[in-house]
Amino acid sequence: MKKIIVFFCCAVACFTARAEDGYRLWLRYDLISDNQVLNTYRQSIKGWIVDGQSPTLAIVKDEVGLGFSGLLGKSIPSFTSVTSDGLVIFCSKKSSLIPSLLLEEKLKNVGEEGYAVFTTTLNKKKVIVIAGHQDVGILYGAFHFLRLLQSQQKISDLSIESSPKVKLRLLNHWDNLDRTVERGYAGFSLWDWHRLPGYIDSRYYDYARANASIGINGTVLTNVNANALILTPTYLLKVKALADLFRPYGIKVFLTARFSAPIELGDLKTADPLDEQVKQWWKNKAAEIYKLIPDFGGFVVKANSEGQPGPQQYQRTHADGANMLADAVAPFNGTVMWRAFVYDDKVPDDRAKQAYNEFKPLDGTFRKNVLVQVKNGPVDFQPREPFHPLFGAMPKTPLMMEFQITQEYLGFATNLVYLATLFKECLDADAYSKGKNSTVAKVVDGTVDGNQLTGMAGVANIGTDRNWCGHPFAQANWYSFGRLAWDHQRTAEQIAEEWIRMTYSNESQVVASIKQMMLASREIAVDYMTPLGLHHIMGWSHHYGPGPWIKNKQRADWTSVYYHQADSNGIGFNRTSTGSNALGQYAVPVQKLFESTSSCPEEYLLWFHHLPWSYKTKSGETLWNAMCYKYYQGVDSVRWMQRTWESLKNKVDNDRYQQVKMLLSIQESEAVNWRNSCVLYFQTFSKQPIPAKLEKPAQSLEYYEKLEFPLAPGIRPRFVW
Amino acid sequence: MKKIIVFFCCAVACFTARAEDGYRLWLRYDLISDNQVLNTYRQSIKGWIVDGQSPTLAIVKDEVGLGFSGLLGKSIPSFTSVTSDGLVIFCSKKSSLIPSLLLEEKLKNVGEEGYAVFTTTLNKKKVIVIAGHQDVGILYGAFHFLRLLQSQQKISDLSIESSPKVKLRLLNHWDNLDRTVERGYAGFSLWDWHRLPGYIDSRYYDYARANASIGINGTVLTNVNANALILTPTYLLKVKALADLFRPYGIKVFLTARFSAPIELGDLKTADPLDEQVKQWWKNKAAEIYKLIPDFGGFVVKANSEGQPGPQQYQRTHADGANMLADAVAPFNGTVMWRAFVYDDKVPDDRAKQAYNEFKPLDGTFRKNVLVQVKNGPVDFQPREPFHPLFGAMPKTPLMMEFQITQEYLGFATNLVYLATLFKECLDADAYSKGKNSTVAKVVDGTVDGNQLTGMAGVANIGTDRNWCGHPFAQANWYSFGRLAWDHQRTAEQIAEEWIRMTYSNESQVVASIKQMMLASREIAVDYMTPLGLHHIMGWSHHYGPGPWIKNKQRADWTSVYYHQADSNGIGFNRTSTGSNALGQYAVPVQKLFESTSSCPEEYLLWFHHLPWSYKTKSGETLWNAMCYKYYQGVDSVRWMQRTWESLKNKVDNDRYQQVKMLLSIQESEAVNWRNSCVLYFQTFSKQPIPAKLEKPAQSLEYYEKLEFPLAPGIRPRFVW
Repeated sequence: MKKIIVFFCCAVACFTARAEDGYRLWLRYDLISDNQVLNTYRQSIKGWIVDGQSPTLAIVKDEVGLGFSGLLGKSIPSFTSVTSDGLVIFCSKKSSLIPSLLLEEKLKNVGEEGYAVFTTTLNKKKVIVIAGHQDVGILYGAFHFLRLLQSQQKISDLSIESSPKVKLRLLNHWDNLDRTVERGYAGFSLWDWHRLPGYIDSRYYDYARANASIGINGTVLTNVNANALILTPTYLLKVKALADLFRPYGIKVFLTARFSAPIELGDLKTADPLDEQVKQWWKNKAAEIYKLIPDFGGFVVKANSEGQPGPQQYQRTHADGANMLADAVAPFNGTVMWRAFVYDDKVPDDRAKQAYNEFKPLDGTFRKNVLVQVKNGPVDFQPREPFHPLFGAMPKTPLMMEFQITQEYLGFATNLVYLATLFKECLDADAYSKGKNSTVAKVVDGTVDGNQLTGMAGVANIGTDRNWCGHPFAQANWYSFGRLAWDHQRTAEQIAEEWIRMTYSNESQVVASIKQMMLASREIAVDYMTPLGLHHIMGWSHHYGPGPWIKNKQRADWTSVYYHQADSNGIGFNRTSTGSNALGQYAVPVQKLFESTSSCPEEYLLWFHHLPWSYKTKSGETLWNAMCYKYYQGVDSVRWMQRTWESLKNKVDNDRYQQVKMLLSIQESEAVNWRNSCVLYFQTFSKQPIPAKLEKPAQSLEYYEKLEFPLAPGIRPRFVW
Repeated sequence: MKKIIVFFCCAVACFTARAEDGYRLWLRYDLISDNQVLNTYRQSIKGWIVDGQSPTLAIVKDEVGLGFSGLLGKSIPSFTSVTSDGLVIFCSKKSSLIPSLLLEEKLKNVGEEGYAVFTTTLNKKKVIVIAGHQDVGILYGAFHFLRLLQSQQKISDLSIESSPKVKLRLLNHWDNLDRTVERGYAGFSLWDWHRLPGYIDSRYYDYARANASIGINGTVLTNVNANALILTPTYLLKVKALADLFRPYGIKVFLTARFSAPIELGDLKTADPLDEQVKQWWKNKAAEIYKLIPDFGGFVVKANSEGQPGPQQYQRTHADGANMLADAVAPFNGTVMWRAFVYDDKVPDDRAKQAYNEFKPLDGTFRKNVLVQVKNGPVDFQPREPFHPLFGAMPKTPLMMEFQITQEYLGFATNLVYLATLFKECLDADAYSKGKNSTVAKVVDGTVDGNQLTGMAGVANIGTDRNWCGHPFAQANWYSFGRLAWDHQRTAEQIAEEWIRMTYSNESQVVASIKQMMLASREIAVDYMTPLGLHHIMGWSHHYGPGPWIKNKQRADWTSVYYHQADSNGIGFNRTSTGSNALGQYAVPVQKLFESTSSCPEEYLLWFHHLPWSYKTKSGETLWNAMCYKYYQGVDSVRWMQRTWESLKNKVDNDRYQQVKMLLSIQESEAVNWRNSCVLYFQTFSKQPIPAKLEKPAQSLEYYEKLEFPLAPGIRPRFVW
């Protein structure tokens, strides 16, 4: 029998060996490769107890069973009482196995969803306890403990307490009901709406496991460019099926609400948020939803932005709209996330100023269950932006951070770009709203202004691709978003290290090499795309590749020339007091930092300043030469990543090695396209040569301008930009 | 070390155990479950030799290594000479290991792509030889041998010869370049055009393996509703990447040609096939393609049909169009498949007659490298149609069979419908074109009219779903299409049996139960959808579910009422001499069979006859009652399939057990919808009660008529019907 199992396993392994396809994400649970560590773990983990019964605890059992047997290479028995050394006990405060005083002590600083992991002695047996107030806390603790094993950390004398820093840790799926995904580069939507609720794809479970393992506790299933169909009874039954499945993983379901739904579905003549019939329609709809899904999370709304309907069509404010929906879900403890990503098609003001202009005056007028959801920067998820001026500017309103995990502007699913450094740059930025050290993170987590309702949203990069995210390394961005939403104080480096150890290898040279690539990767992308504060110069509509030449579109602020302002004198968008004065929206110390070219960090130079081509940069080079060097350095650094990766051949599995190698090669050619396009295009203004020692572009500017990518993925259906 | 492998395997197995997701198709290679068989095999297979070197033989090595080690549960060594009993030798005629006279003898009746598998004695050692003229024949033979093992057949004293009965055995992918799939229900297109040619998805290899294993030797990558973009240099490089990858598997790549491409891509003012510039444009394009892909298969064309451009726009015939393209590819041995699925939007004649009317007069006017590709039936892939009258009617033109594997009209990917019985029904039908026994199969394989160029196309049901086809049982339709294209004399039962053994189990009770379900399943679907010869009464545009009430559309022959002709007197389309006389397009014996209601098989009754509700069927029941019984029997039989499947719990793996269980439950509710919709709708004409003992429909006709499925999958983009 044992023999048969062995053979069976080998057969499976042989076939799957070919298919190291990334499906397992960071939850691989392969046998610990270091024999010494393995032996230590085997001595420390002789059995386990999950004390209690619930759907969530059943998941803990499954996960721990899977994890222990995989990592330790043998089945680890479960116990019902503490009769052996080396037990791992998963329990809540109510557990009778552990002295209640001890549990209370260990959990007293741990929040609702948090957990404690500690070593203690019970009945003279040394055990590890993983405890939480709620079952989901125990699940989070279990994943923490498994992570320690996966990354081969010490597990003796544990004393860990952990709680999330923000309350809502959500993925936003820009998934359409026809399964296309706006700005999705990893295939199509996971949600097989046609076959729901009858057919439950087993992938939904693995999606939930992955999210729970990094503390994500909510998912917005539908695109912010919303379709009212999702609110019909037929579709709500499908949503319920997903909500029921996700519930034991601690994941709530949210939907996007199309503001005109009362007209489209309810036969009303208006969607005016102050109209009594409209209010009643939404109240009824909320009641209908909560009857099916008692813990439904609430609504995310994109209104009066890029063609979406909204309250301003009825001369009402965003607050009127948000509050009307908030009142509808309030009886059920629902939340409304109202997006601040708006820009008026009539106001010719600097696009970077418009969200602030619109929302700042509304501070204090929102219901308690409303969050205003603000993108990290004031334009649109560019490779680099300064933090959004709304952070710190609305002390009476909880602001939800919106990061983009999907790489709309950062190379789709072909560029290796680790985003934790981008996320951290924004979170750690000091908004100075309540004096020094009023970081964006502290605004978001409520400590600056004392908000209770807090959250972070990440626009998901997940699709039907077998490896979930298209690029094997894009998984790290999903992972790091979750880890930072849980604890924004972790560093990008710490997160990269744990992800690499779980996903690729615990071998120190491999970890070091991959970490180096990851940590450098975002700056490399900035260099070959938009160095020195340049922004929004990408391809038209699909946003693929470079498009610094884009002009003469239906709106000026949908063009590239609007943002780079290149002319024969120089380049850059003057947002200082002598220009659009977008800078005036920030606190004074921030203004001071950026206002002067001498103090402005060079990575933001052209975001805030229009400067002559001859401007002397810190290196002593002219602006033109410095820009050229940056673009070339970006490409050279991609080549450095290629060499680094090639040094890992045979140190990571061959399948993923080859995949990443192919993708790095694509990235190199895309980086060259970016560099050549931008340098040649900007040269038409600077009229200066590319510094002599740099390789000459292989093609003419016309060649690059004529490249077309009509079917680049991720385009919004039936609507452009 | 061995221990580590065991543990590693177990870890993999544990994780993948959860994910018995159907990805491995029928190429599972799990350990032989029957110990006696296993021991016999281990004694008979002690080693293997692949004699020769080529990309195709490298694939043979990989596949045999994978298959033997998996099936036999141990690594089987490769040899270089015959020094042991029990060797399996893969070789061509040139092999020095085997006496050349013996090989010549064994291969003399085997065609170009065929193979021989035989037991013989060499150097006094008993060996099994798998030989082919070409390397791809050896690959086919290898898959044959592995199939014997997978299905636990006897392998002593083998003496097998096998050659394909038709030359072109193609999948037609109706895949759009944006990765949507017209009439696709298994996710989206496998072809990741955006990342090709740089990124080669490992799935492409498994697609090629699966096709080679069933003898498919060509793939048409793009939708017949074609996009000229595929013919641009950028896309041709992507096509080349796929062609290079598929080549060693014996699979040629084909494309669909948009007839207006010379205008769209070439800046010509016309696409007139007799225009010299147009001819030259296509010649240049062909040369461009063949320079990249020397073995490019050729073009499939849908012209002057459902909005597609074609030669008739220039007052030219289909032959003019086809010949112009044929001349362009002829210097490179390319083939043109010109589809006969056309119907004129001006001619109000019976739609079932139009392809014949259009093409029959063109017989003998096509170039030698043209096949006319004809759907199995004269309307459009209905659950049941009589065979297409063109089969046998164009003796001077090779006709290519076009089957639809994707279940556009047979329940999408939620209904278990085994299509081999449908394919066989058509292939075995006697067209009587050259006297009795002029079966459709013999027309297609060239024996009736002596054609050399022969082929079968299957519209693929393959997509990005992890199990490839959406429904675990839909894999059987891909499989059986390939097997029948290779040898149309195999029975649906034989093919089902081998597929079940390879895919689910060799246990006789499991095989018997599943086979029973599969063999009955198509008739069951006919019963609850379109019994007694009814056809084309499905939902509008998406074709999901019932829509017998569809009327008043832009064309009469896009409605249901056009096809069922129900009125207060009766129901059915009179296609006899007193009606449209579509029957007149068949040979006289066929006419005779169908013309009289007394000889017309009841399954075709309402296809050919309009009959009163009181018509006495063979059972003695009135037509109305007989129709009701059929619809109810269909639903009851789905419930029988559910019970049969439930009897297999714990006899097939739990993952696929649950998947199929969910899908059967969906199928049951869809069958009820079909039954109730059709019975209630037709009752408005018959004015008669549903027989008393049958369960009453749960909802009113209005309820069913109002059901909407606006986002049912597989809809053609930017174009309806």
